[in-house]
Amino acid sequence: MCSCGSPLLVDYNLDELQKNFTAEDLKGRENSIWRYHELLPVEDRENVVSLGEGMTPLVSFTNLGEDMSLENLYMKDEGLIPTGSFKARGAAVGVSKATEIGVDELAMPTNGNAGAAWSLYSARAGLQSTIVMPKDAPEITRTEVSLSGSNLYLVNGLISDAGKIVGKAVKDYNLYDASTLKEPYRIEGKKTMGLEIAEQLNWKLPDVIVYPTGGGVGLIGIYKALKELKTLGLVEGSLPRLVAVQSTGCAPIVQAWENGERESEFWNDSSTLAFGINVPKALGDFLVLDALYDTDGCAVAVDDQAILDEQEKIAGLEGSFVCPEGAATFVAIRKLREEGWIGQNETVVGLNTGAGIKYPDTVQVDPEMLEKNDTL
Amino acid sequence: MCSCGSPLLVDYNLDELQKNFTAEDLKGRENSIWRYHELLPVEDRENVVSLGEGMTPLVSFTNLGEDMSLENLYMKDEGLIPTGSFKARGAAVGVSKATEIGVDELAMPTNGNAGAAWSLYSARAGLQSTIVMPKDAPEITRTEVSLSGSNLYLVNGLISDAGKIVGKAVKDYNLYDASTLKEPYRIEGKKTMGLEIAEQLNWKLPDVIVYPTGGGVGLIGIYKALKELKTLGLVEGSLPRLVAVQSTGCAPIVQAWENGERESEFWNDSSTLAFGINVPKALGDFLVLDALYDTDGCAVAVDDQAILDEQEKIAGLEGSFVCPEGAATFVAIRKLREEGWIGQNETVVGLNTGAGIKYPDTVQVDPEMLEKNDTL
Repeated sequence: MCSCGSPLLVDYNLDELQKNFTAEDLKGRENSIWRYHELLPVEDRENVVSLGEGMTPLVSFTNLGEDMSLENLYMKDEGLIPTGSFKARGAAVGVSKATEIGVDELAMPTNGNAGAAWSLYSARAGLQSTIVMPKDAPEITRTEVSLSGSNLYLVNGLISDAGKIVGKAVKDYNLYDASTLKEPYRIEGKKTMGLEIAEQLNWKLPDVIVYPTGGGVGLIGIYKALKELKTLGLVEGSLPRLVAVQSTGCAPIVQAWENGERESEFWNDSSTLAFGINVPKALGDFLVLDALYDTDGCAVAVDDQAILDEQEKIAGLEGSFVCPEGAATFVAIRKLREEGWIGQNETVVGLNTGAGIKYPDTVQVDPEMLEKNDTL
Repeated sequence: MCSCGSPLLVDYNLDELQKNFTAEDLKGRENSIWRYHELLPVEDRENVVSLGEGMTPLVSFTNLGEDMSLENLYMKDEGLIPTGSFKARGAAVGVSKATEIGVDELAMPTNGNAGAAWSLYSARAGLQSTIVMPKDAPEITRTEVSLSGSNLYLVNGLISDAGKIVGKAVKDYNLYDASTLKEPYRIEGKKTMGLEIAEQLNWKLPDVIVYPTGGGVGLIGIYKALKELKTLGLVEGSLPRLVAVQSTGCAPIVQAWENGERESEFWNDSSTLAFGINVPKALGDFLVLDALYDTDGCAVAVDDQAILDEQEKIAGLEGSFVCPEGAATFVAIRKLREEGWIGQNETVVGLNTGAGIKYPDTVQVDPEMLEKNDTL
């Protein structure tokens, strides 16, 4: 971070790059985020720590689109990535860069999935890691962290409480602080979602991109990516309107946006089953809000029951088992379409930030039990 | 199936295709199994039901390889695919072809993951499906099946018991039987693992491919793919030695291979935590054994404790949380390397058939709990 307490962002010499970098250069490159290495901060390829992350499918959601009178609806499926969530992108770049600058041991608070990703990528890189997560974080992420050999602690509180514990440990033990926006490289990894959406749509930007927003780094990253692509001349026209989706049980950015504020206020007693977006105050809230204002976007809060209903609808109509945060994305799209904020002919990309299989307790199932000689 | 009771296999006019099909043709095509459409049975692109499956990463396992004195070890990661297991490949092609031939409703027995994949792809295609699985199948697969709107039944027994119930239902209600090898298209989907391995290694075949074997369709498919590539002239030299991995608690194919038999015998009281390979008698056992004999391969049984140990080792050394069946693969490689059956310089590809996150109960974790004001 800057000594003033603000997050640092990575800057590239885009004017120089622009001179001889075209979309053609990407053809035939590997199917991972590293195809965009000119726009990533790792300088020596030897330091790249990769499990094949990136180039996740952009799936056409024709049936769901029809169900909400929307002709061009897509889901970017971040379930198909190592560790089963988009956090792998930030971890891949963050751990690679940590390796490059000589880090031995890192620490971070997490709502679960980021910790899982960072601990597994750290294991691959041979770094030690310390992870603190709320006791209510998805249980499977405990297994991922623990199995990787990281130091895992639970806290009887929220991610903000985990953050305080990590903040102190970082000072006490001189650890590398890998918390959201306390190092500038995670955002570079998440940025690749924006690069991929542009490339997968053949460099024609969609009208709207909708993102479930906790810490907001994904949205900040997508915004940064699109601006970089524009500077490079790979895309043209206005940027997509960016939409931040939160839960009615934790909506600090929605509240700030509705009040026209540039920063959010701490949301007390936050609660939602979409655990990844249970972040009462994001360090990068002002960057998220900038992105919304600058692109004529908006912020929308959705409730837990609507999330569960949409999750089932998506599975039944599109065959995809999305995570609750991903379902929240499509609730918001439905709502914005109903209100007319999204037009019928607009091209809309919704992010499913992780695999539904990471949240086994979200859905209760009670199937009929047969004995061996029973018939249907 | 054939009226004689044997499985049917799809045959292509390879001689004709060979005349003007080269590796160059694949460049720039989509990152999914459908890049190989000339070698898939769906005739009209309109019938393709896809969630972006395929082109899963072939990840270098340098650290684990070093741990077992093996210089060129790779993992093909089938966790990064819709529904989190390689079963998505068979379902994508199987459901697409079912759509093409006008099926409305299908039924199948499953150890969990195949049912999850087929029900979700069926939902996407608008087909009705009926799925019967053992009560001990991974619980998350119940959620996937149920959420997709399929008819889900559990049976107090094994997949062979589920198979009998489905067999009767298929006749009683005139359903399309999507059981393993009772339709010829699933194998075509799984075949794509072999096509991808060859392409990802730049058309230079590895020395050994190791596969966790339940029904064995993946292994049969890989073998078929490699033979087709050879006929097309895309690969040269001997085929890789194929290895079938089973559990010591359910090893009918290993037993048959050790006795030099062409078919396996029903394995009584089978049991293993690697549930996907708990198949006491595979309909395609003779095809699996053919593939092993024809390639100078072998069959290996590994025990559950070794699977758990290897799973932890893989997470700690490579940062990948593999499923128990995937861990079994690497136990077998370790064993064959120790015995000298695999040489130090040989190139070995092990299949991880699914995401570890689908099996939350495999690993027990008991982390320390902190209160809000605690320090580390």
